[in-house]
Amino acid sequence: MSVYPIIMTQSQFTHRDNLHYPFEERGLQFGDGIYEVIRIYNGTYYLLEEHVDRLIRSAEAIKIKLPYDKDEITHLLLELLERNKMTTDGKVYLQVTRGSAPRDHIFPADVLPNIYAYVGDLPRNAEIFKNGVHTITQRDIRWEYCYIKSLNLLPNVLAKQTAKENNCYEAILHKDGLVTECSSSNVYLVKDGKIYTHPATKQILHGCVRMAVERFADELNIPFIEESFEVEEIRLADELFLSSSTSEITPIVKVDNQQIADGKPGKITRQLQEAYVSDANIQENNLKHTV
Amino acid sequence: MSVYPIIMTQSQFTHRDNLHYPFEERGLQFGDGIYEVIRIYNGTYYLLEEHVDRLIRSAEAIKIKLPYDKDEITHLLLELLERNKMTTDGKVYLQVTRGSAPRDHIFPADVLPNIYAYVGDLPRNAEIFKNGVHTITQRDIRWEYCYIKSLNLLPNVLAKQTAKENNCYEAILHKDGLVTECSSSNVYLVKDGKIYTHPATKQILHGCVRMAVERFADELNIPFIEESFEVEEIRLADELFLSSSTSEITPIVKVDNQQIADGKPGKITRQLQEAYVSDANIQENNLKHTV
Repeated sequence: MSVYPIIMTQSQFTHRDNLHYPFEERGLQFGDGIYEVIRIYNGTYYLLEEHVDRLIRSAEAIKIKLPYDKDEITHLLLELLERNKMTTDGKVYLQVTRGSAPRDHIFPADVLPNIYAYVGDLPRNAEIFKNGVHTITQRDIRWEYCYIKSLNLLPNVLAKQTAKENNCYEAILHKDGLVTECSSSNVYLVKDGKIYTHPATKQILHGCVRMAVERFADELNIPFIEESFEVEEIRLADELFLSSSTSEITPIVKVDNQQIADGKPGKITRQLQEAYVSDANIQENNLKHTV
Repeated sequence: MSVYPIIMTQSQFTHRDNLHYPFEERGLQFGDGIYEVIRIYNGTYYLLEEHVDRLIRSAEAIKIKLPYDKDEITHLLLELLERNKMTTDGKVYLQVTRGSAPRDHIFPADVLPNIYAYVGDLPRNAEIFKNGVHTITQRDIRWEYCYIKSLNLLPNVLAKQTAKENNCYEAILHKDGLVTECSSSNVYLVKDGKIYTHPATKQILHGCVRMAVERFADELNIPFIEESFEVEEIRLADELFLSSSTSEITPIVKVDNQQIADGKPGKITRQLQEAYVSDANIQENNLKHTV
């Protein structure tokens, strides 16, 4: 694994050893902030504009005034890769909090947001793309504004941990019997040649890869239907898959120990994976072969 | 205002200038932690045992293994006051996160929780205790486990900010028409000599002062009924009040610009305030007179 030593903080670049946060920080005491995880292939961002747009939308939703506009953020993120001589597959984590101030729920006056971004390695995971993953189902106990990519991730952490303790990769969340999304990815059901997924309401994150999946489906003439499905319908699915910047498009082959269809990734999932690789201009040799 | 320079970090004491947090910290990136705000009168903790007990319950609920037991935490908190020569009215903020580790939803292995606590001034607010406060009502958009005193406070922050922008002290939250609590306090309705408040389910914080209010009501032979009331019932209330470690017992005299009863703090609220002052052994001269 490479270590990428240069971190962006505000609009400056410094060695990662130099960045520390004060203990009276609204990110640390309230989770009062937002973030993005942006995918990198061969040293190039994938879906960068979508991520920056969403960051701006999340900031507006919680009334954080970003000190930089879209072009400036984009430029800073590009400079971050250059300064780290990043040329392989990885990710950038970008976070904005409302700033540092004595603890009080009310927004502090005259305080600038704290921003940082850093680069990490993230080799593609051949094994899960090829063979799929197992998931559990869990009740969605999160707040009502999951479309905001906020730092309030405790329910997501707990759901993902429960999945892991059940030897699963993800937790499929459901509210009132309807599947919303997974703990850190969107989820889709394929039935009779059509893709179903929860509509992009306030209840789910509007995934950047989800937007790409919709575009791929359109190009492939596969109906993409924004209609939530019931937990009970999962066992009758022809295919099931999830998507995120980290997991790309990953087939789900087992849910709560029940096999989906024949237990193998389905045809439409495969087509979407191919479209993803092509769209992201991925060289097929940069896969981490874990099996 | 005094500045209390000594901060507790893990089981050590250091100057507050020496405490910084790494940027890959689970509190900062996931809100993956818990906290307490403990009231101090005349340099002495009020309801200390209740707060420490709740911290332990919150830690268990999100599976953080506290490295100290109840006695050790209590001792550390007492030492913090001594080292700061704290003799007036104030508060201690105590926070525990799951620790510092490369970002991943799943619990990190072999990482110790990060703990810190620091002291602040908090003069009693004579004006609000005497005259009461105004509030707004807002939909409760929080997650389902509000009984955990977690660092996922973004919805609380947004509700409190909206209250402030409406020249109000607090926001009364309601779910499906039923009042749960306020953004950082419990709320109670008095009708026909009885106190009503939301039962201590997973949907609300089990306030330490709430427990005290229940005890005072018992001592005063006032029925304390754990039954949620509807937003619509507020305008018919005889009295309305809120409680928290910061706000003690504060009358609410206006809700959404509508006066409650005669617009003055009610008799039962006054009795409870007196019981509070007596129970906390407060010297009546330590009030901040803002009017």
